[in-house]
Amino acid sequence: MTMPEHPVAIAAIDAPPRVKPSNYPQPFASRMAGRRKQPLGDLFGLANFGVNLTRLAPGAMSALRHAHTKQDEFVYVLEGHPTLRTDEGGTRLAPGMCAGFKAGTGNAHHLVNETQQDVVYLEIGDRTAGDSASYPDDDLEMVFVAAGERKIQHKDGRPY
Amino acid sequence: MTMPEHPVAIAAIDAPPRVKPSNYPQPFASRMAGRRKQPLGDLFGLANFGVNLTRLAPGAMSALRHAHTKQDEFVYVLEGHPTLRTDEGGTRLAPGMCAGFKAGTGNAHHLVNETQQDVVYLEIGDRTAGDSASYPDDDLEMVFVAAGERKIQHKDGRPY
Repeated sequence: MTMPEHPVAIAAIDAPPRVKPSNYPQPFASRMAGRRKQPLGDLFGLANFGVNLTRLAPGAMSALRHAHTKQDEFVYVLEGHPTLRTDEGGTRLAPGMCAGFKAGTGNAHHLVNETQQDVVYLEIGDRTAGDSASYPDDDLEMVFVAAGERKIQHKDGRPY
Repeated sequence: MTMPEHPVAIAAIDAPPRVKPSNYPQPFASRMAGRRKQPLGDLFGLANFGVNLTRLAPGAMSALRHAHTKQDEFVYVLEGHPTLRTDEGGTRLAPGMCAGFKAGTGNAHHLVNETQQDVVYLEIGDRTAGDSASYPDDDLEMVFVAAGERKIQHKDGRPY
């Protein structure tokens, strides 16, 4: 008997955590402490977009505040009250609330857990080729190199 | 003062329902009674994938059982216990469970609400070009025509 390549369905909470907690160089990687991502879409072999179940402990953040050039993103809050920070400022979210981040607008976003309770949300991002990302609050940028390859560097182009 | 083009965030339940309840021809459109879709991603101008908050009354289904050639799909159950039907058979889901449907496998899927309580879930599908869809249980197929245009026809090619 052969096992199927992918499960039919799973309880999201049972998905394995992402092996590499952060793709940022230091000191930014350390700022992702308290963030746990469980990739869901990958478990089913999805290639066109990723879905993560992400948990933020008190004080944790979803990512550095950033904007993508090609890839859309979307979040749906399942538990807790994250603060969404964009160019418009901060907006406190609640379970059942959602937000979308259209590629190419330059409006940078992230979620920060400023409460004493965990925050849990679904995040979806597509994998359109040629994407890069800007980080208005930090000295880094992510630039497209080639299909499937991006690099993170200082804003003046020096490597980390 | 100009209003921003898109909201910063919304309560998903407040999103307007999709204007056209079903894209199927009759008699299939009538089989979608009891299904309500609230597009979420479109509200934020997302183009690369769609996200819907979808509610199934008792007896309703998500779609005809189908498989996409290019577009991945993903569902996350928020409320209730839909039955996921695939080539493997039926699997009863629960809140917090998820499933992904990889494009190109030919394994057709849909959700059916066989309970007496409403089912609510998030559904995500990307918009990769050139997609078509097959429907193993019904006499229709969706074929790619041109960018942004697909048509639904009988399996022998006759139009509906």
